[in-house]
This record gives sequence, C-alpha cells and structure tokens, in this order.
Amino acid sequence: MPSFFKLKKSEDVLRLIEQFGPSGEETVPLEYALGRVVSRDVISQEDLPHFFRSVVDGYAVRSRDTFGASESLPALLTISGEILMGRQSPSGLSQGHAFRIATGGMLPENADGVVMIEHCHLLDEQTLEVSRAISPLENVIQPGDDFKKGGTVFKRGHKLRVQDLGLLAGLGRRQIRVYRKPRVAIISTGDEIVSVSEHPGPGQVRDINRYTLAAFCRSVGAEPVNAGRCPDHFEDLKTRLHKSLARAETVWISGGSSVGTRDLTLKVFETLQDFELLVHGISISPGKPTIIGKSGTKPVVGLPGHVASALVVADVFMGPLIQCLSGRTRSPENFQLEVEAVLSRNVESATGREDYVRVKLVHQKDVLVARPVFGKSGLISTLVESDGLIRIDLNTEGLYEGQKVKVRLSPHLSSSV
Amino acid sequence: MPSFFKLKKSEDVLRLIEQFGPSGEETVPLEYALGRVVSRDVISQEDLPHFFRSVVDGYAVRSRDTFGASESLPALLTISGEILMGRQSPSGLSQGHAFRIATGGMLPENADGVVMIEHCHLLDEQTLEVSRAISPLENVIQPGDDFKKGGTVFKRGHKLRVQDLGLLAGLGRRQIRVYRKPRVAIISTGDEIVSVSEHPGPGQVRDINRYTLAAFCRSVGAEPVNAGRCPDHFEDLKTRLHKSLARAETVWISGGSSVGTRDLTLKVFETLQDFELLVHGISISPGKPTIIGKSGTKPVVGLPGHVASALVVADVFMGPLIQCLSGRTRSPENFQLEVEAVLSRNVESATGREDYVRVKLVHQKDVLVARPVFGKSGLISTLVESDGLIRIDLNTEGLYEGQKVKVRLSPHLSSSV
Repeated sequence: MPSFFKLKKSEDVLRLIEQFGPSGEETVPLEYALGRVVSRDVISQEDLPHFFRSVVDGYAVRSRDTFGASESLPALLTISGEILMGRQSPSGLSQGHAFRIATGGMLPENADGVVMIEHCHLLDEQTLEVSRAISPLENVIQPGDDFKKGGTVFKRGHKLRVQDLGLLAGLGRRQIRVYRKPRVAIISTGDEIVSVSEHPGPGQVRDINRYTLAAFCRSVGAEPVNAGRCPDHFEDLKTRLHKSLARAETVWISGGSSVGTRDLTLKVFETLQDFELLVHGISISPGKPTIIGKSGTKPVVGLPGHVASALVVADVFMGPLIQCLSGRTRSPENFQLEVEAVLSRNVESATGREDYVRVKLVHQKDVLVARPVFGKSGLISTLVESDGLIRIDLNTEGLYEGQKVKVRLSPHLSSSV
Repeated sequence: MPSFFKLKKSEDVLRLIEQFGPSGEETVPLEYALGRVVSRDVISQEDLPHFFRSVVDGYAVRSRDTFGASESLPALLTISGEILMGRQSPSGLSQGHAFRIATGGMLPENADGVVMIEHCHLLDEQTLEVSRAISPLENVIQPGDDFKKGGTVFKRGHKLRVQDLGLLAGLGRRQIRVYRKPRVAIISTGDEIVSVSEHPGPGQVRDINRYTLAAFCRSVGAEPVNAGRCPDHFEDLKTRLHKSLARAETVWISGGSSVGTRDLTLKVFETLQDFELLVHGISISPGKPTIIGKSGTKPVVGLPGHVASALVVADVFMGPLIQCLSGRTRSPENFQLEVEAVLSRNVESATGREDYVRVKLVHQKDVLVARPVFGKSGLISTLVESDGLIRIDLNTEGLYEGQKVKVRLSPHLSSSV
C-alpha cells in the first residue's frame, strides 16, 4: 500500500467531523420549517391553552355538586344553558347547576369539571341526572397544561418534526429562526465523465455521482449546488473549487478513484487558504480513498469515484457532516436506524478494516433474512439491489451464515422507510 | 357508547384503504425524482457500462501472459503505452505486451484483465515485471455488468431512492414517468379555531392541525392543499368540501371531536356524489372518532379534532393511504421501522381496543428504555415529548415494567430519523 495512505478509523473520522458547525441563521415561515434546525432557544410567551377546556362532550359542573352521586343515587342538577364553542359563557355557574359543553369548549366561571355525556340522563329540558361523581379538574385541560408561559419550547439545535410545528402553531409562532441549510457544491471530475444527456463514446460514462450525491444532500436536509463537471486538470479543478467554496458551506469533489486523480484532488485542496488536511484515507471498505480537509471553517471532501463507495461514504460520514453543518445537536436519541435480520451466508472481512456489506432484506416465512449483495463497488446496481448495510467491525474477521446481524437503514437508501 | 359507532378493527381499515390508487402520471426531470413512484416499467435501452472497464490502477494485459507468474518467477511484459481516461486505445494489445491503465479506463482490444499496480514492478521504462498471475476478467467490469440492455430497471410502483437515481442517470434517463403526487385538501373545522396569526380570545384556540397535517403530508410524499378554516356550519362546510374535492385527490376534514361536529362531517360527506361510508369509528385509542368514506374513487376522511389523536391516525392510516394514492406497490420489504426497548413502567390497556402509547426513548447505561408519555390526547406536547409509539394489541390487557417492547418509529415523528 503506498505510504501516503495514513488510514484513519471511522470513529476518529466521525470525531473530526464534529468540529464543523452551522454558518448562519434565517427566518422561515412555520409551514416550511419541517426538518429545519432551531437556531435559538424558543421560549413560550403564553400558556397553551389559555383557558380551562373540556376534553369530552358533557356537562360542566362544580365537582362538589356530584360528590356521592351514583347509579342508584344520582345527583340532580339544573341546566343553565349551553356553552358555545369558541365563546366565553356570559354567566358563571351557580351551585347545583350545569352547562352543556362540547369537547374543546371553555368552562364557565366556577365550574371545575365536566361529566361525560354517558353518565348523564336528562329528566326534562332543565333537569339533569348525574350518575357518577367526578373529581375536581376531571375531563378538563388547565391553562398551561399543553405548554406553560416562560417554558423552553425547543432548545437551540433541535430539528423540527411534524408535531413540533403543531406546538409552535399552538403558541402562535408564524415564523421561526433556524440555521441556514448547508449548501453543498458538488464537482464531478474525470476525463471520462460525460453529462447524462450525452451519449457516451468509447471509454466514457455518464455522471452518476452528481445525481446520487445531490439526492443524498436533499434527503439529509442540505442544498446541493451543481458546480459542474471538470476534467482531471489542475487549473480547471482549482478554479472550480475556489469559485464553489465561495458560494457553499462545503465542496465535495467526486473524483475518479485512480491514484492520479486522488493526488490531483489533494493538490488542488492545498491551494486553498488555511488548508488543513484532516483525513487522507479511511480504513473502511468500500470508501477507503476519501479525503477530508478544511479551509478556514469549511470542510472540503474528496469522495471516491466508485459510485457505490461514494454513496456508502456519504451515508456513513457525510450524513453526520451535514448534521453538524445544520447545527443539529447530537442527542442520544438520534440513534442509527437498524433492523435485526439473519445472515443468509458467510461473509469474510479483513481485520483492520471496517466493512460495509450491502444486503437485500427478504422475508422467509416469519424470518427477516439479510442476503449480501456482492459486486464491485463501481456498480451502482449493487446498491439498487440493496435495502441496507451491515457494518463489520475492524476487529471481526467475518460473519457466519445464520448469525443475527443488525442491518443499518437510511431514510434515503432503504425502501422500507 | 352511542350506537352509531360501529367500530372497525385497524387491520380491516388498512385493508379497506388498499382499494385506492393513483390518479395520473407526469414526467419529471431526474433531479426531482427522489421519492417519486415509477408509473411504468423502466426498461434499459443499453448496456451499462458499454465497454470493458478497469476497476483498479494497473496494467491491462492478456491474462494468459501472466499465467504461472509469481514473486520468484515474474512474467516480463513490454509496455505499449498508456490508456487515456475516456478514450479508446488507438491500438490493440499484442501478445507479451501491457498498457498502463487507471481505474475506470477502457481496456484495449485483446486485453482481458488488469494487474493491480501493487503486483507490478518497472524494470525500465518499457519493461514490466508482473509478480502475480491474474485470471481472465480479473479486475474488470464487463459490458452490462451494472445493467443489461433489455432488462427491467424498475417495475411500476417502485419508489425511487437515492441510488435508483444513480442507475437511471447511468442509463441516460434525464426524465422519468411517475405517478402524480396526491394532493390532500385539508379543512379545519370548529367555531373555536382561529388562524395562527390571530390572538385567540376566550374559548378560542389556534389551528394546530393544519400545520401538523400539512407537514405530515409533505413528509410522506403528498402535497397539502390549504382548503381553509370553516365554522361548524353545514352549508359552509359542504361548499368547501365540494370545492376542495374538485382540486385534490382526497379531502381531510380535521373536525372537532365533539359528537355534533362528527355528525356534521358525516352529513356533509353524504352530500357527495356516489358517497360510500367505509369506516365510522376505529377501535383504536387515540383516534376512535375517525370517518373514512369515498366519493367515486376519491377517499374523504374525517380526522379526530384532538391534535395528538389526529397525528396518530395520520401515522397509522393516512401514511398507508398516501402510499396507495401514490401508486406505490406494497412489498414485504416496506416494513414498519421499529426499535426494541425496555418498558419503564406498567401500561394498562382495555381489551377490544388497540392502544397506541406515546413513548420517549432514553438510554440508561446500555439499555434503551421506552418511557410512556401520558396526557390527554388534546395535548400536542405529549407527542412533542415522544419519539415513537408502542402498539398494544386488541387482545392484550396491558404491558409490564421491564418488558421488551417494539417502538414504532416514523421518519416524520421520530427525532432519531
């Protein structure tokens, strides 16, 4: 192995990636905030709800008027009227009285509970029989029950999910400060690469990585920037790199996997201001010829040219990189999605190298089986046939047929999600 | 329980949902095809790659010229030149000769394998020592290895993932026929509902469901259509429903959960042409007061007004409905994402009802613990605190502290994803 490869372990690479952070903030309307990362702690300015609210259809009462009530000895109450939805009752509740109320209605003054309609019986239009005692606050949401004024709704670094938008809507936040989406400039290099619209001549292939990497970026919340194709030529690549870095938070060069191209990527990176090389080769397969460096605070990445390798590296390392650039806080709850399956055959693995084996998941009777998809990492079809990846540890020599394995799933690569 | 509730089991509801299908096709550029569903079988028009390609850096040779070669008895070959990337070699390979070739390069005529550079030694500029025999086709991708001409690339109903775009790019497909995204018209009803920009008066609340349901739709590949807010008034709701159904594939009315509002939703549905009621109440909690019907081929849905209930129903039933409307083929590989955890406390459940318990996932030492989040289903905060749902079967009375449970995760509701 040539000496310039000082391979790093994947956990060390992941640790190095954590140094990168978000680049700025912006304000977005709530309806477009799904998946965005909150850039400032959100504090509630009000109680949600701001009034006592019924959660059932029934009668608003003073709970003590029902104490002791039962099927055999019901409480008799006088009906004062009905609470209209979205309105305050014009009068409070007098002792021994009840107001008809629907789910979501506002309790009248002096009422402290709601009897469900199932436990009520109308003797006549004005007289209600209550066959069950309720305790104070029964069937009622109190002011602030959903969220209290002054409380922290979301901490900086929280990624907004569907239900989170609901809470923000409930609190009247029509817009929200979030970190800017990281822009990822993607440069495809290689004298052999032609655009997808061209018919490739002898020795030429279409630009696959541009599509997979751009789609990957979108699926993890980044914005891909098409920085074009470029032959394996120092000056061309240098110009393109410098230009792209000015308008993106990171530049990914998807290079050929040949030694010459890799050298070129690194040489071009070295022309950047304050360039620092962080990773020159990772002890994983596929994906070894990966270069990660930085210029100032911006990461620059040389990805393997092999299409499947590039996508495995994207999944394992570029996903976490985008998370960092998005300002998302790492929390123990952001765990890796995986599913347990039984391996269909032996898989060999070299020690000292972390292997990512592509697998297809199939149900055989009631057992989920992981069937390794073999094939050269230059073949995109190996990933098309796969549903997930099995990670084989650095210190493991292989896995056995019938062994239970954890299959790593990604929202962007697995059909299950 | 009032007699108009003929509760359906959730598996029966899911079966009823399968009758719905996609509404039309459109052509989209490849770069916007991620997550879209292929509407016609895609057949490859060409071999990928269309030439013999090296997967390593090394020397293109006739394999038989290396037979018998070893460290102690290397084969000696004459170097004819170098293969340029993206070019065809102007001359073929003569016996006893070799061409320098890089990863991705096209093999010259008569060459049938590539010796890795690690097994080569240059004696002088023209003489190569090969210390290892290679077999025919070693380190070579053959024409059609990635995909063969005439083969089915994707079947109708396949949802396109990141890697799938790569294969389509490789095959030169700049655009692709997909099913149209289902448009979901969302109507919020309730006299008490005000817009998010308003300051709610006494008894009023902001329109939470519009935001959660719209975000949910986006996250499962549908297009939400804002069909406005509407008081609990028959004519208003009827007009709005008929208008929205004309410009969407489905209409969801997020009603108040009061009996009166539910009745109103159903009455308004009954004014639709060819209306057929499919589901009037589901034996799940939360989510019981759900109505599903159809007008012609279009499903119409009355969702519970309680915010958490509406979102649980969306997750369990509307996700599958959107899949059907998107034309996606159900395959055994589209399984539910879940993670195993240990329950932190006893959870009761009524038999005859399927319960969805919201849980927060926490790591305690090395154990993933599912901590139930209790609270009324009118509180959005219960879902904000949660990472997933535990499903308790119809026939199970409860779960015990310390029991292993499967926690259902959704890309849109779980922070892990």
